[in-house]
Amino acid sequence: MSANNAFYAQSGGVTAVINASACGVIETARQHPDRIGKVYAGRHGIIGALTEDLIDTSAESDEAIAALRYTPSGAFGSCRYKLKSLEANRREYERLIEVFRAHDIGYFFYNGGGDSADTCYKVSQLSASLGYPVQAIHIPKTVDNDLPITDNCPGFGSVAKYIATSTLEASFDVRSMAKTSTKVFVLEVMGRHAGWIAAAGALAEDHGIPVLVLFPEVEFDQARFLAAVQEKVERHGFCTVVVSEGAHYPDGRFLAEQGTRDAFGHAQLGGAAPVVANMVKEAFGYKFHWAVADYLQRAARHLASKTDVEQAYAMGRAGVEFALAGHNAVMPTVRRLSNDPYAWEVGEAPLAEVANVEKFMPKEFISADGYGITQACKDYLIPLIQGEDYPPFERGLPKYVTLQNRAVERRLGLFEVE
Amino acid sequence: MSANNAFYAQSGGVTAVINASACGVIETARQHPDRIGKVYAGRHGIIGALTEDLIDTSAESDEAIAALRYTPSGAFGSCRYKLKSLEANRREYERLIEVFRAHDIGYFFYNGGGDSADTCYKVSQLSASLGYPVQAIHIPKTVDNDLPITDNCPGFGSVAKYIATSTLEASFDVRSMAKTSTKVFVLEVMGRHAGWIAAAGALAEDHGIPVLVLFPEVEFDQARFLAAVQEKVERHGFCTVVVSEGAHYPDGRFLAEQGTRDAFGHAQLGGAAPVVANMVKEAFGYKFHWAVADYLQRAARHLASKTDVEQAYAMGRAGVEFALAGHNAVMPTVRRLSNDPYAWEVGEAPLAEVANVEKFMPKEFISADGYGITQACKDYLIPLIQGEDYPPFERGLPKYVTLQNRAVERRLGLFEVE
Repeated sequence: MSANNAFYAQSGGVTAVINASACGVIETARQHPDRIGKVYAGRHGIIGALTEDLIDTSAESDEAIAALRYTPSGAFGSCRYKLKSLEANRREYERLIEVFRAHDIGYFFYNGGGDSADTCYKVSQLSASLGYPVQAIHIPKTVDNDLPITDNCPGFGSVAKYIATSTLEASFDVRSMAKTSTKVFVLEVMGRHAGWIAAAGALAEDHGIPVLVLFPEVEFDQARFLAAVQEKVERHGFCTVVVSEGAHYPDGRFLAEQGTRDAFGHAQLGGAAPVVANMVKEAFGYKFHWAVADYLQRAARHLASKTDVEQAYAMGRAGVEFALAGHNAVMPTVRRLSNDPYAWEVGEAPLAEVANVEKFMPKEFISADGYGITQACKDYLIPLIQGEDYPPFERGLPKYVTLQNRAVERRLGLFEVE
Repeated sequence: MSANNAFYAQSGGVTAVINASACGVIETARQHPDRIGKVYAGRHGIIGALTEDLIDTSAESDEAIAALRYTPSGAFGSCRYKLKSLEANRREYERLIEVFRAHDIGYFFYNGGGDSADTCYKVSQLSASLGYPVQAIHIPKTVDNDLPITDNCPGFGSVAKYIATSTLEASFDVRSMAKTSTKVFVLEVMGRHAGWIAAAGALAEDHGIPVLVLFPEVEFDQARFLAAVQEKVERHGFCTVVVSEGAHYPDGRFLAEQGTRDAFGHAQLGGAAPVVANMVKEAFGYKFHWAVADYLQRAARHLASKTDVEQAYAMGRAGVEFALAGHNAVMPTVRRLSNDPYAWEVGEAPLAEVANVEKFMPKEFISADGYGITQACKDYLIPLIQGEDYPPFERGLPKYVTLQNRAVERRLGLFEVE
């Protein structure tokens, strides 16, 4: 009998919809009991595979698996752990094969961003180098939206919807207060290298909100920025600034790194938002408020984009279908067919072309002054945040599922992860 | 003809549902054209009354007024401006009466918290002292939930729902990441004097989340707090801290005031969240993330509590009904009849008993260790966050209304606000 169980793992920072991809993988696998036995999940991602800490998803009811579709975060645990090259750490790859062999695993589904696409690609090559047949499929996921080939990455649309909505709502608040109180509101968002998430904040502009975006792609120029703030406040009475955590000075220093020290002289970690807010206050005396969305933005399943949820699920399902069709070393992608009405289909990318390639925001998506987005960018973003997909609520709170995560019996000795 | 127009103004920090109260006032007034002529709104709150900057709400369509029910913030503008006593600034009260007289205003609806209840009470006494008949009704509103007599304050339930949901969602995220990355997540919430909002974060506990709350009511003890964090992390693998902006040391210093200085020695304003997060990091080396919700929490109409929206609307409607019944110097209240099933009715409180009285969290709502909430507190909170009341969405974003806010023609000379 050929190996017919599947392994699924979540990798890197989790999102509001990564579990929707898990749901797509598991539900689709369950529809093919003749071809796929059990789906084992790695507890804490790939670490679970290395340490033979496998979760038996077949112990979960259909209802529990269905609930993954509307449950944020990584239901099986994720990790930040990148496998080195086969040459640098052959031992880890050999261990992976041992675990796969011991548990009859023939399919490897890896749900993550750029780094995990690379790992997945390495695993896809193991059949040849280590003589054990395994099909490796990468399921795209990242709020950073930086995977190549695919039009967008599941996880991003929901963060974008959350940031656009929050920017709009908080800006309405500031507009109400500006006469005697807050005139400038600063919202810090994720995105160390790319301004995709920050760009979503600028969507509030079409709702009458004066927004300035500080992108990681545009070197920060304090004098020019302050002049822009002043112009907005004088014209509109208030202004909202959306600052990416990756916004930085020409010398590469992040805005967040201001060399601040506490009373005892210890270096103090702060955010970019308070730095920007204090800068504005010092220049003009404007009252300000600031917020740092942090995990709230990527966990906000209550405000997920319906488009994003559907695509996340579809990527999981397509991954299994590709595997059943005999494909290896590929990643399902979103292919955009049209903006308005929005239409898309599932595509397929060879992992060799995905691994270690980062997609940046196109220059033509950032407005000429560097503080906003162009119509092309809006046309790209709006379909991705469209539709609502509310989770069920119970007693006032979302009814998210926590799985049993029952362990598969170990068959091998211990293995230490470095 | 007796004065028959009404004046409505929004005061202090706005909320996700203060416009629902405005909607209740205006829709109810429109149902009584024989008794109430036009509803004029103060542009930027009471400042609009003093400067005769009135908005003619009769210029708005029924649809636009209905949309106020699901639009956060203050549609007419709010302000932070407290009238002094009649003795200290008689000029302002005389001006109010001049404006009321010039525009035939016989009803004064003031939508705010403790300070505005006091102002409203003063205005209610003007008939006697300045000889102009005006009925003054206070419509309760405050995310701080600190008005007396009423069971709760419109605005609070929605913030509580947002904070409880966000704490739950972000904690699921941390739980996923804790193995190799973030172990402690710190969320800073509003509440300088009372821990009502922070308390809502502890509702995530019933969903398996280890939560520690830092209340303004409990003096901060660093050693004891760090021991509690360590215990949670060792037992659960992770921990979430919800810190109130008002959390402080025994000497009264806020956690946020750490005397931090930037590279140039300038005092730096930060939040309590990064201070707490860095403290944990220094003690145990745990990786952390922190968020500051700030305006996001009180503007989050997309996640409003249905109970809260209904009560906000009902308070506006009841205010008009009280006025039509000839009442003066009163505030509609929420009277809780039972917790489960939740039942409430509209009550009525004399403003003399509301003005300048602050309601604190009962001691029996905070758990013995000072870091959590009791069952009594949960029983109180859960009904207030119950039900969802989503706004309509268009192209991915909530479709909030911006009114025309057409000015009423001035009839008086200018007046300078101090």
